[in-house]
Amino acid sequence: MEKEKLDENYMKIALELALGGKGFVNPNPQVGAVIVKDGKVIGKGYHKFFGGPHAEVYALREAGNDAKNADIYVTLEPCSHYGKTPPCAEAIVKAGIKRAVIGSVDPNPIVSGRGVKILKDNGIEVITGVMEKEALKVNEIFMNYIKSKTPFVILKSAVTMDGKIATISGQSKWITGEKSRLRVHEIRNRVMAIMVGVGTVILDDPLLTTRLEEKCKSPTAVIVDSKLRVPLKSKIFETSNKRKIIIACTENFDRDKAEKLKAMGVSIIICPEDKNKRVDLKYLTNKLGEDGIDSILIEGGSELNFSALKSGIVNKVIYFVAPKIFGGKTAKTSVEGDGIEDIKDEIKLKDIHSESIGEDIMIQAYVVNSED
Amino acid sequence: MEKEKLDENYMKIALELALGGKGFVNPNPQVGAVIVKDGKVIGKGYHKFFGGPHAEVYALREAGNDAKNADIYVTLEPCSHYGKTPPCAEAIVKAGIKRAVIGSVDPNPIVSGRGVKILKDNGIEVITGVMEKEALKVNEIFMNYIKSKTPFVILKSAVTMDGKIATISGQSKWITGEKSRLRVHEIRNRVMAIMVGVGTVILDDPLLTTRLEEKCKSPTAVIVDSKLRVPLKSKIFETSNKRKIIIACTENFDRDKAEKLKAMGVSIIICPEDKNKRVDLKYLTNKLGEDGIDSILIEGGSELNFSALKSGIVNKVIYFVAPKIFGGKTAKTSVEGDGIEDIKDEIKLKDIHSESIGEDIMIQAYVVNSED
Repeated sequence: MEKEKLDENYMKIALELALGGKGFVNPNPQVGAVIVKDGKVIGKGYHKFFGGPHAEVYALREAGNDAKNADIYVTLEPCSHYGKTPPCAEAIVKAGIKRAVIGSVDPNPIVSGRGVKILKDNGIEVITGVMEKEALKVNEIFMNYIKSKTPFVILKSAVTMDGKIATISGQSKWITGEKSRLRVHEIRNRVMAIMVGVGTVILDDPLLTTRLEEKCKSPTAVIVDSKLRVPLKSKIFETSNKRKIIIACTENFDRDKAEKLKAMGVSIIICPEDKNKRVDLKYLTNKLGEDGIDSILIEGGSELNFSALKSGIVNKVIYFVAPKIFGGKTAKTSVEGDGIEDIKDEIKLKDIHSESIGEDIMIQAYVVNSED
Repeated sequence: MEKEKLDENYMKIALELALGGKGFVNPNPQVGAVIVKDGKVIGKGYHKFFGGPHAEVYALREAGNDAKNADIYVTLEPCSHYGKTPPCAEAIVKAGIKRAVIGSVDPNPIVSGRGVKILKDNGIEVITGVMEKEALKVNEIFMNYIKSKTPFVILKSAVTMDGKIATISGQSKWITGEKSRLRVHEIRNRVMAIMVGVGTVILDDPLLTTRLEEKCKSPTAVIVDSKLRVPLKSKIFETSNKRKIIIACTENFDRDKAEKLKAMGVSIIICPEDKNKRVDLKYLTNKLGEDGIDSILIEGGSELNFSALKSGIVNKVIYFVAPKIFGGKTAKTSVEGDGIEDIKDEIKLKDIHSESIGEDIMIQAYVVNSED
């Protein structure tokens, strides 16, 4: 096999490994590393949990003394600074690695290229940008956060083939199949916050927890509720001992109710109003970013979805399309609100991609925001 | 390579050839044939136009005397009867073919198995069912028509990611990209009729013609118009010299207007009313089937789409999903009408499949009707 093809193959293994860390490393990146000698994989590792050893450390440990003169494949540029762990670039040098193949350099402009420099200065052959697109995608949350300090926002919806999220009478359980619903829990497990409108809390009374067989965590719940209409008996408050709950309201809120909510362990963020006298979502997400939230999954409803898309905070949409049709002029769709009037004001998506999830189709695409 | 794998490979070539006949052979099936000797393709053919020679004839002609002791691969069981051409099964025997590999037997219960019998009776080794699923799919229109004598009905829609077919102000040009629109013309070229509601004619004033660079034909246009509301100046009537135009109405129609339409070359089909006092679509499609129409493409609008799905006439849906979002509570979606109330009455789809068409996603699925 050609060397380039070989490099890609080992990088693929490293990328697969990187995915092992999903949900546990935020706001760190997910990284995978593979050490190869004489055509054999002698060490593998991934960054397992926030604050824990980096991928390279696990891989070097497994390879032991054999790491001498071996090649290392790592999805992200090895770190060059003392953080919670010593710098990986130095560990690679110390182990006697001969050649380093890197997926993507560090997106953090302050340290980008420093890891590579340490390796090169110590005589290691360095190749960067192997499967770079895939390497960046594995860490799209991290990459976005390190650059912008605002959360990566994913809007998720489950719809029928004709775009409905409920029948005309409001029935919506279930639209998509089990495998799609499991996938949603996997996504919840990967983000730091989940956001819903108060309408969804009133209507569906959801728990918004992550339910997976494996070890998982429930993300911070953010309820957008301009006037604090949320019922105090909502089920979600039963989860407040296990996860943080934030309610975002505007200045117009009921102070007594706010006190009651605070007594239940709920945090309140007071936000400026947008043009429609609702919570300014741009302000809110910036605020959440400042508080260390690197990712938000928006799970509706239709009003919040439109406000979020219109405000420009959404980075990515994930649609689960079920093989069924509801019809109905009054049946709810995934994005409502005022909508756009002129087609030239449409909210543009790019890099659309579809795949089968059980009997459903999952479509992912990225929002083209004016900054892009 | 294993023999089975080899057979599949040659059948794939025959299936590709079969597709060459799309749009010109209705109500005949699309058939492809390949003749192979000593691992070499020595003859290829497909059914090019209605009434013309069958695929096997072209392939045998190309192979000439070399057909002796060769293998033939044909997507559909060779015919056994004198129709517009002599029976292919006999031609195969006469050419001295040694082995025949068949995709699917003839779905017509009257002749099914007869072609195979002729071959076997003459000492030819016969293998059937190779890539049968694909062979049936190439001819899903023909297969359905030969068995039921009703048209195969495809419902097509072009939607945004959030299921809209227009903005709140009604703008809809264009939702999908050029490649998707080209694909729609290819589908139009393959069906015998195209059906729209009168609302679409009033609103969009479409030509409903097939526009392709290659040779193509515009299908019969069927306008569902219970009360004959169609404007006499609609552009579609300008195409009446090139194609048939049918208007389906109920007993409640305006007789003067009907006379005027007839004078313009339009055919009128008077249909019974359904529960909503609209054209009974089941009656209409049966009637069109009796008149030799084997396939119908429904191109909206939302009201007709719901009526058609609800009445059980639709076999397949094709959605083109564009990478954009319109939003809007009042923006039109692909299927409206009354809609279903209880989720257990949902219109079920199966065999959902998605693929990229330019920047859009095309999703195809089959309707699960109660007869299935």
